Amino acid sequence: MALVVQKFGGTSVGDADRIKAVADHIARTRRRGDQVVAVVSAMGKSTDDLIRLATEVSSTHPGRELDMLLTAGERISMSLLCMALADLDVPAVSFTGSQAGIITDTDHTRAKIVEIRPERLFEALQAGKVPVVAGFQGMSLDRDVTTLGRGGSDTTAVALAASLNADYCEIYTDVSGVYTADPRVVPTAHKIAKISFEEMLEIAASGGRVLALRSVEFARNFNVPIHVRSSFTWEPGTWVKQEDETMEQGVVSAISHDITEVKLTITGVPDRPGIAARVFREIAERGINVDMIVQNTSKEGATDISFTVPKDDMGPSLEVTQIVASEVGALNSYADPGIGRVSLIGAGMKTHPGITATMFETLAKEGINIEMISTSAIRISCVVRQTDVEKAVKALHEAFDL
Amino acid sequence: MALVVQKFGGTSVGDADRIKAVADHIARTRRRGDQVVAVVSAMGKSTDDLIRLATEVSSTHPGRELDMLLTAGERISMSLLCMALADLDVPAVSFTGSQAGIITDTDHTRAKIVEIRPERLFEALQAGKVPVVAGFQGMSLDRDVTTLGRGGSDTTAVALAASLNADYCEIYTDVSGVYTADPRVVPTAHKIAKISFEEMLEIAASGGRVLALRSVEFARNFNVPIHVRSSFTWEPGTWVKQEDETMEQGVVSAISHDITEVKLTITGVPDRPGIAARVFREIAERGINVDMIVQNTSKEGATDISFTVPKDDMGPSLEVTQIVASEVGALNSYADPGIGRVSLIGAGMKTHPGITATMFETLAKEGINIEMISTSAIRISCVVRQTDVEKAVKALHEAFDL
Repeated sequence: MALVVQKFGGTSVGDADRIKAVADHIARTRRRGDQVVAVVSAMGKSTDDLIRLATEVSSTHPGRELDMLLTAGERISMSLLCMALADLDVPAVSFTGSQAGIITDTDHTRAKIVEIRPERLFEALQAGKVPVVAGFQGMSLDRDVTTLGRGGSDTTAVALAASLNADYCEIYTDVSGVYTADPRVVPTAHKIAKISFEEMLEIAASGGRVLALRSVEFARNFNVPIHVRSSFTWEPGTWVKQEDETMEQGVVSAISHDITEVKLTITGVPDRPGIAARVFREIAERGINVDMIVQNTSKEGATDISFTVPKDDMGPSLEVTQIVASEVGALNSYADPGIGRVSLIGAGMKTHPGITATMFETLAKEGINIEMISTSAIRISCVVRQTDVEKAVKALHEAFDL
Repeated sequence: MALVVQKFGGTSVGDADRIKAVADHIARTRRRGDQVVAVVSAMGKSTDDLIRLATEVSSTHPGRELDMLLTAGERISMSLLCMALADLDVPAVSFTGSQAGIITDTDHTRAKIVEIRPERLFEALQAGKVPVVAGFQGMSLDRDVTTLGRGGSDTTAVALAASLNADYCEIYTDVSGVYTADPRVVPTAHKIAKISFEEMLEIAASGGRVLALRSVEFARNFNVPIHVRSSFTWEPGTWVKQEDETMEQGVVSAISHDITEVKLTITGVPDRPGIAARVFREIAERGINVDMIVQNTSKEGATDISFTVPKDDMGPSLEVTQIVASEVGALNSYADPGIGRVSLIGAGMKTHPGITATMFETLAKEGINIEMISTSAIRISCVVRQTDVEKAVKALHEAFDL
């Protein structure tokens, strides 16, 4: 008998029929002899609807109140799921983030979990019930309702799996797993059966939308195996777990791409110690996550610094960049939203030289100019024109024979 | 400087524009120098929408989960109101029933308030903020989310006003106060400026929809003056307070009517002590509120008992009535949903004989048959055919010169 955390995303509980299908799936899992803890997102586009309402009533959205508003969404889906389970004679009991003991810091709209006190979930399990937990939400140390930000429900599920010492965590979504590339771009892309935490981290960090980065970090830190799969076909998906011998040992496992970032550049930065630190300190203090950073070799005592940030953060990022640029005596600064990023990910890369060369040659053959490069032990990312992204993904998928 | 609890019902916060109007009104109240605690219902028909969803996913609606579902409604309206207030530079902070310290019993979907611990509201007031509290909801002694049932938001508002020792409680709704009769039935009905708790109780208990009965009971018990008024015109409405000399001293203050009840009758009940008690004990144990009860004089050792219950409770009531009827050897039992009730209410009645006679004569002149009669010191109610109700209200309004 295993203890399984099953998380159902917004499309998986998008309407009454979907909720009944999810209830049926949980009932089947129980009949198999397993214990289930369910984690649910808000139904379909209901979070977007709430945000639209907020925009209609107000131009300021205090974080505490935005969190209070958005957490209405999971309340609806989780109580409906419990009712649907009751119809199938599966005793179920819903828990808000607060009731499930998910304690966070006070950083509204992007809170971090600081502790989980799952006593009430254990009690429910011991009483033979299915705890149905609201994803995405928690209670702060100040006893206010918080939300965990983008991908928060995945994080809730994995964190609960870790704290309940569950056997594994299943993430049900509208795609059937992790693919070697986005199947909408590369029709021949195939589903990966198993992938290591490290590779999944790189995929999530470089534009893969299947799992939220934070949930993969959590899973790796606490060694929680994740099974990403579809709630529409219910077929086996992709296992994300510690690297082992049974994994596919291709040099390159997947190609991911991302068109949600913007490139900021400061030209003619005086080449003195501490200047780059100052730029990124100012940006970090505004809570903006910088992704790729590239600094060119210094010419005549000055250098250019480029970096990428999420498009949503472009305004404040450019503002602070311009202030700092003028303060340090740089020549100029500008934003370029027309970029995209293409990344190769593969644990085999560390031991295979020549991957980088093949990647650059492939892009060159397609006439695609590389504007920025960044690498890790198991990833190579290139920033290119956004209009070249799909062509690059297709060419690389073929070149590496995925 | 007064402390005012202002409650805004579903139509008052029905859309983004209404919410902004409510925020504006709260801001004006503050500029007048008063402190405000706001209590809100769910937006417009959103509770009905949630109930429809529940019906779609499930035929069983466990009370705990239904409460969890429905409390999503006030979360949305209260956080949106706080955002709208923030836009007007009025600092506001929302509180769920649980956060506001509203502790209830564990009777889901119709919980009763057992205690209020308003520490967080006091803290917010002291910090110069407007606490915006979710109406209708609380937290049970078992730490589960509960709802207070029909009229629950009015009850929340009055109970908070009592526990915060507020100067008065304003109930904003879509009518401009308490009228001498329903203006849709009697176009010449006029608004009552002041009315006593006792009269308001009788009006609420006999079909008046303006204030929930429970909230008036609370107000009387804790002597909280209520001002019922419109959030559409914002004009002064009706004050409900302790009887004093300044009140209009008409003999009859108002005429109310009700068509939401059903009459149950048990015929040929053996006239022995304890039989009636048994019927009503069984019904009470199912949580059903019996309203009027009439027992005729015994003829040949048997009697007929009639009583009214809400139409929603007709099924279970008739079931238990039939069981008890057969157990005690009664002749027959049946339900009659085609009834309505017309009531005269007036504190002056106690000292004016002849009111009852005038009422009966008026109805007789209109050819309306009286099926049941019940009286209190300040109320006379007659059950008549539902089709006769409007005619009766019009005739009585004229006869008593309201």
